[in-house]
Amino acid sequence: MKITDAADFIKSCDNAFILTHRSPDGDTLGSAFALCRIMRALGKKAQVLYDGQLYDKFEYLKENLPDLEFEPRCIIAVDIADSKLIPAQYQNYSESVDLCLDHHGSNTGYAKRTYVDEKSAAAGEIIYELAELLGIIDSDIAKALYTAIATDTGCFKFSNTTPKTHRIAAKLMEYDFDFSAVNRAMFESFTRERIKLEQLLLSSLEYFADGRGVCMLISKEMMELSGASDDDIEGLAAIPRSIKGVYVGITMREKDDGYKLSVRTNPLVNACSICAEVGGGGHPAAAGGFISGSLKHAKETIIAISEKYISQVN
Amino acid sequence: MKITDAADFIKSCDNAFILTHRSPDGDTLGSAFALCRIMRALGKKAQVLYDGQLYDKFEYLKENLPDLEFEPRCIIAVDIADSKLIPAQYQNYSESVDLCLDHHGSNTGYAKRTYVDEKSAAAGEIIYELAELLGIIDSDIAKALYTAIATDTGCFKFSNTTPKTHRIAAKLMEYDFDFSAVNRAMFESFTRERIKLEQLLLSSLEYFADGRGVCMLISKEMMELSGASDDDIEGLAAIPRSIKGVYVGITMREKDDGYKLSVRTNPLVNACSICAEVGGGGHPAAAGGFISGSLKHAKETIIAISEKYISQVN
Repeated sequence: MKITDAADFIKSCDNAFILTHRSPDGDTLGSAFALCRIMRALGKKAQVLYDGQLYDKFEYLKENLPDLEFEPRCIIAVDIADSKLIPAQYQNYSESVDLCLDHHGSNTGYAKRTYVDEKSAAAGEIIYELAELLGIIDSDIAKALYTAIATDTGCFKFSNTTPKTHRIAAKLMEYDFDFSAVNRAMFESFTRERIKLEQLLLSSLEYFADGRGVCMLISKEMMELSGASDDDIEGLAAIPRSIKGVYVGITMREKDDGYKLSVRTNPLVNACSICAEVGGGGHPAAAGGFISGSLKHAKETIIAISEKYISQVN
Repeated sequence: MKITDAADFIKSCDNAFILTHRSPDGDTLGSAFALCRIMRALGKKAQVLYDGQLYDKFEYLKENLPDLEFEPRCIIAVDIADSKLIPAQYQNYSESVDLCLDHHGSNTGYAKRTYVDEKSAAAGEIIYELAELLGIIDSDIAKALYTAIATDTGCFKFSNTTPKTHRIAAKLMEYDFDFSAVNRAMFESFTRERIKLEQLLLSSLEYFADGRGVCMLISKEMMELSGASDDDIEGLAAIPRSIKGVYVGITMREKDDGYKLSVRTNPLVNACSICAEVGGGGHPAAAGGFISGSLKHAKETIIAISEKYISQVN
């Protein structure tokens, strides 16, 4: 499917439910709300569906966008690579998605029509192109799309960012919205509980392999002491690898029956290979896994595996 | 002076020393090394002068750029708003700067020729425009200019970023260099000492005014315990304001005779007004000052002032 076909389909449909993925992030939400605004500007009924409650920081996405009640005649999924990622309460739509707009190369093709551009850093880039094709964009749409693109690229920091990403950002910023307020909300706003948790887990850092490896613990006790919720954990696993000289940064999260691992590595070591040894997987620089049993067992196991990979670096 | 005049001047000069400002950052260094490479590509002798030792993270800027020995016939200052900001060991050039390229509206005009564009988020944007005018750009120059622009905009996050900033970033990224490695080095690389210091100072957080104010201490003892240096402190003062609900975030750094203050505020409170009450100053969202005497005195003083301003917010 070409993007012009996707635009034509949007023009042809009405009474649309726009689905976002589980544990919604700025890309799925920003893209969906932008598309919703575009469709309403085209005179259509459209409504964004999302998992649970919207986090405070995303509230502005639905400003001046009243909820509408209607029976859907069209289901659109945005940034959802697999129908399993549709939130539980909307799984009844998983077999009847009319159009899926996505940037994941791993998209399973579960929808009746799928437009995937895996060169896009964010689904927001695709919605921007649709907005251009449909000739509809205003400052609210620009703000939502900026949110989508900024969050999925770590504010243009990550390797998925392309020249096109920057060119789209330039065009979005010509509209009147406070992009730096968006960035503050997305990247520089933490709960007191999160800050307390960060302090606790920084005190748990244990270096190994002459400082080329480091292990950080998120225990149930720390979660309780800090009062932090799961939302507060976002991004913390990036801390260990950010320490100079570290090749392998491990975060161990205590669960009922063992420890959930997040392994981040620098380009000299493959995180996916490390995690594969405990039955996990992921990407070369970021992977995950699980080790059952005691903290001592889990830590010794993952450190021994990491040391092996670190020792292979010249 | 127009930018075309600046380009013409660069074409006409040779044996150039390129000055960077005290406590050099990514913008002054990236801009200066880019200009140095441009001038060498034009067949000229050019050399960057900087304060002290280059931090490790900036080493790549001088890759394949051997030091040259020559007597200067031309002095160029980059990103230096005031001749006082020229490093002490190069103050002998402060009266004889032939060309100053800068983006600070506060530039004092100390040079014989000055090109200032205060709409540029970074001096790097100006050097990019010169590179275009002079027709010389390669991947090393692009990498240096990307470094300059990314650091001065917090990777395109801060309010100084403009559509032009993004358009220049897009053009730079068309050259072959690893921009995400630059971003990791600039934004996601901390010493072990810095991480330890962060843990210590997060445990010093004291909330006031129902959590709308927070005060963080960097004591001499913490510096000693962590082994952190002054370089490691960069950016820490942004932490208090990043906490949700905080209007005024204060960082107090212990000095021999009192406490150096960094005050960061959200848009509802003016940091400069707060600091003015203790004889300090700065910008609306970030200001500084100094209070002599004990910790207790300094803390009570700045908290009382902050509470007054916070209480004025509806």
